[in-house]
Amino acid sequence: MRARHLRGPYPRIAVLRIGHRPGRDPRLTTHVALSARALGAERLYLHPPDPAITERLRAVGRRWGGGFEVVGVSDWRALVRGYSGNVVHLSMYGLPIDRRIARLRRRSRLLLVVGGAKVPGELYRLADSNVAVGSQPQSEVGALAIALAWLRPLPGPRDFPNALQRIQPRARGKRVSRRGAVRP
Amino acid sequence: MRARHLRGPYPRIAVLRIGHRPGRDPRLTTHVALSARALGAERLYLHPPDPAITERLRAVGRRWGGGFEVVGVSDWRALVRGYSGNVVHLSMYGLPIDRRIARLRRRSRLLLVVGGAKVPGELYRLADSNVAVGSQPQSEVGALAIALAWLRPLPGPRDFPNALQRIQPRARGKRVSRRGAVRP
Repeated sequence: MRARHLRGPYPRIAVLRIGHRPGRDPRLTTHVALSARALGAERLYLHPPDPAITERLRAVGRRWGGGFEVVGVSDWRALVRGYSGNVVHLSMYGLPIDRRIARLRRRSRLLLVVGGAKVPGELYRLADSNVAVGSQPQSEVGALAIALAWLRPLPGPRDFPNALQRIQPRARGKRVSRRGAVRP
Repeated sequence: MRARHLRGPYPRIAVLRIGHRPGRDPRLTTHVALSARALGAERLYLHPPDPAITERLRAVGRRWGGGFEVVGVSDWRALVRGYSGNVVHLSMYGLPIDRRIARLRRRSRLLLVVGGAKVPGELYRLADSNVAVGSQPQSEVGALAIALAWLRPLPGPRDFPNALQRIQPRARGKRVSRRGAVRP
């Protein structure tokens, strides 16, 4: 169950979020981006582009480290068609992830696609596979988080280099070390 | 890694979401509720109460089955103090979940607490433990989803009895059976 029991090498993972509605759901897409970053994805492709979210995650990266980025895409179909890797659409209608995970883990590069409420039907055909995290109505943030946690180990502090600050895990309260103050 | 490799019995899990802002973030809290339901929690306690979300999840349950419910709570401290089970606060500042999960899995009842942006400091003391899903800024939906997926197997169709409709998983497109139409 625990990701650290996974054997590497692990797939390199990017996420594509389609159906974002700038202005309407900045918080939900921000959550998609934060989960993608915290769980080891390298990049979020965002359709349509939203510079506010790109900048917000850039600010998170400046503070907390790592190379994660949000890249706006105007033509998500071109990205999916041209992707040099395996394209996995996370959908409640797909095949159960329990039965697909071992195969996905052997891929070198994955693009995980999450949609909003209305997903264009052609995505089901364009994706290499359609995979369900529970065959129930589900949050795309939750589905993405579980897929990432099953595909890769949870990142540790060293996976986010050049951080200005780092959390020092503790049983109670909050402790954060600033660069130069405490060496992890 | 896969939940079906977990050995039962599994803890019974409820979720407490505090810091909900009715009107401001109905979608985010809806995502918390949908993930909790899809991943096997029995109940979401919601502070402050929000009848609109309780009703929305009731409608999901009527259609998709199961006994999940959203229960509004006015006094979350009383709920946490009086809870007859282990109270686990999911926080980026807590101890890494990898190191706590085996212990949590042996509990019979868990209350997983997720907050919004600002969590009252006393929650860190009131909880039995503070646990981090990645020591990075993270979505509470993502953190909750991973915790649930590591604590219990992904629910199957039979875990949602009395459904009016069920998904028939497939590699392409969508298939849903209505009650009486297709027997699973």
